[in-house]
Amino acid sequence: MNSTVLSKLGLAVNHMSVDCVVLGLAESTLYVLLIKRKVEEDGKIVYDYKLPGGLIYSDEDLDDAAARVLKELTGVRNLHMMQFKAFGSRNRISARDAKWLKDTLDDNVQALVTVGYVALGRIGRKLNLHNAGNEVCWMPVNEALKLELAFDHNTLINDALKAVRHNADADPAILYTLLPNKFTALQLRMLYEFVYNKEIDVRNFKKKMMQLAYVEPLEEYEQGVAHRAARYYRFNRVKYKKSRRGGTD
Amino acid sequence: MNSTVLSKLGLAVNHMSVDCVVLGLAESTLYVLLIKRKVEEDGKIVYDYKLPGGLIYSDEDLDDAAARVLKELTGVRNLHMMQFKAFGSRNRISARDAKWLKDTLDDNVQALVTVGYVALGRIGRKLNLHNAGNEVCWMPVNEALKLELAFDHNTLINDALKAVRHNADADPAILYTLLPNKFTALQLRMLYEFVYNKEIDVRNFKKKMMQLAYVEPLEEYEQGVAHRAARYYRFNRVKYKKSRRGGTD
Repeated sequence: MNSTVLSKLGLAVNHMSVDCVVLGLAESTLYVLLIKRKVEEDGKIVYDYKLPGGLIYSDEDLDDAAARVLKELTGVRNLHMMQFKAFGSRNRISARDAKWLKDTLDDNVQALVTVGYVALGRIGRKLNLHNAGNEVCWMPVNEALKLELAFDHNTLINDALKAVRHNADADPAILYTLLPNKFTALQLRMLYEFVYNKEIDVRNFKKKMMQLAYVEPLEEYEQGVAHRAARYYRFNRVKYKKSRRGGTD
Repeated sequence: MNSTVLSKLGLAVNHMSVDCVVLGLAESTLYVLLIKRKVEEDGKIVYDYKLPGGLIYSDEDLDDAAARVLKELTGVRNLHMMQFKAFGSRNRISARDAKWLKDTLDDNVQALVTVGYVALGRIGRKLNLHNAGNEVCWMPVNEALKLELAFDHNTLINDALKAVRHNADADPAILYTLLPNKFTALQLRMLYEFVYNKEIDVRNFKKKMMQLAYVEPLEEYEQGVAHRAARYYRFNRVKYKKSRRGGTD
């Protein structure tokens, strides 16, 4: 265990953790990185899911803690992580969570403030590996939110999406970090639908997309698809910056 | 002392606090709410300033802790406070800060993660009272940032301003919560200058302001001023919402 620095003190004090909401887009679905959690309940083994997270060392910066925890638990590194909110509700630990914490940390945890980080990344194949004995998986965000995740992790995911939405309002460029270099109009629209959590009219969207100077159509099309091959587009950062300079003046 | 719940444990563990950056506009100056801090250093008494802040109880929600701490230290209440960032750098406690924490909490604090809250309020007269033995004052933000404040409170103020700026980009309405009901073009421009931390051309600003349907000119003018009496304007929330609906579609 690498999160026992605090718990060695052996007291039921406040603990501090970081939790990472790592989002990734594959095809037209938004995924979130989760870890399968094993809990013993009434003599039976049950499983549920949690976000990658862990306690903060007392000599560690928050940002460093988030990067370390993510790397240790999932192998994912070099992702730009953005702190979005701290969570400290006293209702965030269920009986099951308390049991799991006790088993994992050998400590009674009564309160656990967590600092939420969100990262946008493309889904890489490496992530499907099992790391450090944890079962790491990508789950469609919609499915994850239907489950009862550990702690208040449903809230964390929802608030992370809100933070992305909020940032995308001010700086749409961050959305394109979720997309592959070449993407279809469908992928871009799906991304907007997920982030803004609403259905978007196909024709209106296409029209608006065409007006974005920084979304460039390529002379390339999908290959080997059953339906009509869609055109690829790419995000042009130089044009984007130009358009922003004009806009903010 | 009201922040001794954790410190009674008597161990040098991580502590968690909240700090409040309360901003207020008076005339054309942006102020921040500070508390004078008394520290004994080399046998001498020295003073500096800190943000209103305190430890979080282990059975308390973060938002509740922020509201409680602000009320206890300054008497200010019923202010909408927005969490903007958690700070956990190991370098945020200087030797002086550690000494002050030891004197105040009777405890060795090695690490102190704080959750920053920002609130926008008009300056009220009540705030000039001394509360709970603390010397509470409003200080112009520019002056405060020239001082070496306690802990990393210079960073907290700067990051709070960034958060306000960021939110104002997405929703300019929040800026108007800092203004009196009737305000002059000068006040509005000064506010923009503070929040965006840059000089704004007077004539351009006036022109743009005129284009904002939700900033309504009144048939009222300043009274008893030596210079030419300026016209008053007011923020029309209904028109604002209308203009936003049109904009986001």
